[in-house]
Amino acid sequence: MTQTAAKLVIITEKVLLKDITKIIDAAGATGYTVMAAGGKGSRNTRSSGQPAISDTFSNIKFEVITASGDVAREIADKVAKRYFDNYSGIAYIDEIEVLYAHRL
Amino acid sequence: MTQTAAKLVIITEKVLLKDITKIIDAAGATGYTVMAAGGKGSRNTRSSGQPAISDTFSNIKFEVITASGDVAREIADKVAKRYFDNYSGIAYIDEIEVLYAHRL
Amino acid sequence: MTQTAAKLVIITEKVLLKDITKIIDAAGATGYTVMAAGGKGSRNTRSSGQPAISDTFSNIKFEVITASGDVAREIADKVAKRYFDNYSGIAYIDEIEVLYAHRL
Repeated sequence: MTQTAAKLVIITEKVLLKDITKIIDAAGATGYTVMAAGGKGSRNTRSSGQPAISDTFSNIKFEVITASGDVAREIADKVAKRYFDNYSGIAYIDEIEVLYAHRL
Repeated sequence: MTQTAAKLVIITEKVLLKDITKIIDAAGATGYTVMAAGGKGSRNTRSSGQPAISDTFSNIKFEVITASGDVAREIADKVAKRYFDNYSGIAYIDEIEVLYAHRL
Repeated sequence: MTQTAAKLVIITEKVLLKDITKIIDAAGATGYTVMAAGGKGSRNTRSSGQPAISDTFSNIKFEVITASGDVAREIADKVAKRYFDNYSGIAYIDEIEVLYAHRL
């Protein structure tokens, strides 16, 4: 069932976790993965400052894999328009080849 | 020593950590990276439910970089056939360009 | 503002966190993301040994997104030449499509 798919990555501030989860669900994506992250962005230094990797992570990295690039772009559009004026963040797409998934 | 390689990503439940490590080693991959993750899959909501990013991560994300796409596919096949009927999981491949590595 | 960009990934030992941060900043990259990781490399077993995912992570994964592949390669060159003789590590590039970013 090898299938080309779009991997949408959104890295932004942790406080947006629940809001972004709702946007992903509403767009019809079948799942997502979220990880803790630290770092520095171009807008300003994220609240973690010098990243203390073992202590606190003030950022999150979402990965959403969708069969349709349109769904990925819709999610990115909504997140960026609602939050990226006031929060640091980046959204990018990477093309991948899905080998196994319960459903895309 | 720039070299095109296959990056295999497997995201699944944390309880499978040791079993998947053994499969990767047995396939002859020279290394892997593993990270804690939360999220929701299409099979069902993973045990983390609403992800509490700073508390618990019930999923893991493996990255295995192999010079041979065949080794990557062999690992994915074994993991999916053994576990994906009973555990949530996804496996995908991304083509990357390795700049520096001790050995692939 | 969709734009093809280079995502540089460096996975290495946690003790190098601050040094690598300085190299990234000095190269003129506008930001980076860093995450905790465990794993095993080809050079030797990283200090985490069998990865105890919820306990300790002795490795870090950097992601640096740059409009210029040259900046990404410069960072990788400096990190590899300074540290990869004595520390385990890998550096690779993946081409991505940036949808939203404050600045690249």
